[in-house]
Amino acid sequence: MFRISVKNREVLDLEVDEDFSLKLQKWKQIINDRLFKVVDSQGPPILYEPIKYVLQGGGKRIRPILLILACRSVGGEVDSCLDAAVAVELLHNFTLVHDDIMDRDDTRRGRLTVHKKWDSDVALLTGDGLVALAYQALLRTKSPSIDEIATIFTNGIVELCEGQALDREFETRPDVALDEYLRMIEKKTASLLSITAKIGAIIGDGNEVEVESLGNFGKNLGRAFQIQDDLLDITADEDILGKTFGSDVMRRKQTYLLVYALNHAIAKTKDNLNFLLSRQAIRKSEIMEIRNLFDKLGSIKAAKEAVQNYIYAAQQNLVKIKEIRAKEDLRHFLNYISTRNA
Amino acid sequence: MFRISVKNREVLDLEVDEDFSLKLQKWKQIINDRLFKVVDSQGPPILYEPIKYVLQGGGKRIRPILLILACRSVGGEVDSCLDAAVAVELLHNFTLVHDDIMDRDDTRRGRLTVHKKWDSDVALLTGDGLVALAYQALLRTKSPSIDEIATIFTNGIVELCEGQALDREFETRPDVALDEYLRMIEKKTASLLSITAKIGAIIGDGNEVEVESLGNFGKNLGRAFQIQDDLLDITADEDILGKTFGSDVMRRKQTYLLVYALNHAIAKTKDNLNFLLSRQAIRKSEIMEIRNLFDKLGSIKAAKEAVQNYIYAAQQNLVKIKEIRAKEDLRHFLNYISTRNA
Repeated sequence: MFRISVKNREVLDLEVDEDFSLKLQKWKQIINDRLFKVVDSQGPPILYEPIKYVLQGGGKRIRPILLILACRSVGGEVDSCLDAAVAVELLHNFTLVHDDIMDRDDTRRGRLTVHKKWDSDVALLTGDGLVALAYQALLRTKSPSIDEIATIFTNGIVELCEGQALDREFETRPDVALDEYLRMIEKKTASLLSITAKIGAIIGDGNEVEVESLGNFGKNLGRAFQIQDDLLDITADEDILGKTFGSDVMRRKQTYLLVYALNHAIAKTKDNLNFLLSRQAIRKSEIMEIRNLFDKLGSIKAAKEAVQNYIYAAQQNLVKIKEIRAKEDLRHFLNYISTRNA
Repeated sequence: MFRISVKNREVLDLEVDEDFSLKLQKWKQIINDRLFKVVDSQGPPILYEPIKYVLQGGGKRIRPILLILACRSVGGEVDSCLDAAVAVELLHNFTLVHDDIMDRDDTRRGRLTVHKKWDSDVALLTGDGLVALAYQALLRTKSPSIDEIATIFTNGIVELCEGQALDREFETRPDVALDEYLRMIEKKTASLLSITAKIGAIIGDGNEVEVESLGNFGKNLGRAFQIQDDLLDITADEDILGKTFGSDVMRRKQTYLLVYALNHAIAKTKDNLNFLLSRQAIRKSEIMEIRNLFDKLGSIKAAKEAVQNYIYAAQQNLVKIKEIRAKEDLRHFLNYISTRNA
């Protein structure tokens, strides 16, 4: 039994469902099979080798699974939405490869990033190729609403780029407000999960209310997911995380924790925090010091609460979903996401 | 009167048409108006400022004009294809921005490239944003064949990426054959012009033969265009060109000229050429020496002939086009492209 306490509201009880774990495994396998077929190309190895490498890097396939769940929750068939599921995974991997270049991250999921294993030119091209392959997969979807689906998908990419741009802009700004941060993660992370759920619902022939509800479910899930990511960066075990501990801090990234801290600290603490962040190279001991400051200022508690609140909101978005079994799966999915440790 | 002599075949006479120049001006204006509307966004300046900067850099708008001409040549209206015309121009600009990062070019059309004016992260994001905006524009097209159009557009991007990958791969290979080079430019340059003409023809409701013919017209135009580009790099005036003279040579790029030369030189001349290209930094005097070698080995003559042959082939692709006036415009367009000096 996993209990999430939501501030002043209620307590959600979620069973850890063995059956759901098996379903996850099965869908992941189906997605991976389809995904690797996409890159089984005779094209130039300098393009397709790094693309294969990225896709073979694993990952939980959260987005394609969400798409399948959304499609099923309105009565659609898994087969009908597999191409679109693969498309959102390819798109997600495009963002990872280009983000890693910009963030100068050396590792991802415990392996060298593309720009480290090859170089940044290859990584640039790999990302571009992944976008094109994503559209190819998406456009293989048989749906009378394919133009609407493609438009939603495209608007999602525009949002992603805008979110990434804001993220970068914030790195040089000392005064980011919490609602600015929230708008940024909505674009950078939540929008892709939102369009993913929407597209699944449209392929499954959901009605307007269902499509909208599932879009909001994806958005709230995405918000929770990003804030949890911010938390994990500084609280998770490095080996489990598969990337450098405290890398957000080292990069002076505006995370929920930092934004909250800077907005709630008294002048002296704020100065101390800014001083620690201004060092040329931030050492592990200083990261621990910053983490302690986050704790004292209530950042970690507030971030955890924010995660729970968005998960609660996502739960509420499922009220209009009629397919009982598929709705249960979406709730289990939410549970699965909210208990992740990497 | 401009005369193109085509090897052993015939002489094409093309009038320089005042009226056509005026049409070009008019279409360019229409395209620019629509193009700047696309980026008239309230989004993050760190994303939209460089995008605007790129689009304001000018350019001949060859691709959107080709799309309009193809649409008209099968009886379509200019208005119906403007969004798609803007889409191919945005896509073209995406390739320029990302190519400039990879080629480390400092200037483009006489102005600083995005990665020089800002940095390579901003340029990366600018390119990504341009792709997404291109799809947004494309998907605004009202056509019953929008799924086919989007698929052709997407396949074009895959080809672009593959061509760019081959181009890079060739930079480190000493033994590129002429047909490998031709396959590379087909993907890198000709495919975008081919899909441009095809999409115009589909929006204009052309029949299968017309769509295919215009696609081939675009492809042959693209081949001619790229080889001419290779020629201009080493024969054009730097001020007119708006970029560094001999930059292909300095980068050891496999151009038509170099591939032809290496495939036709005797061992001693080949060694000399490879020696010149192996220098850490290639000076202007050495570029002139290489140019003279290209001349002696027949590269320049062969490249010019190849350009003319592809232009002739493009002419032949117009045989099936029935709209006399629009067909005339396409011939004038071909003339306009083939007489460019930058």
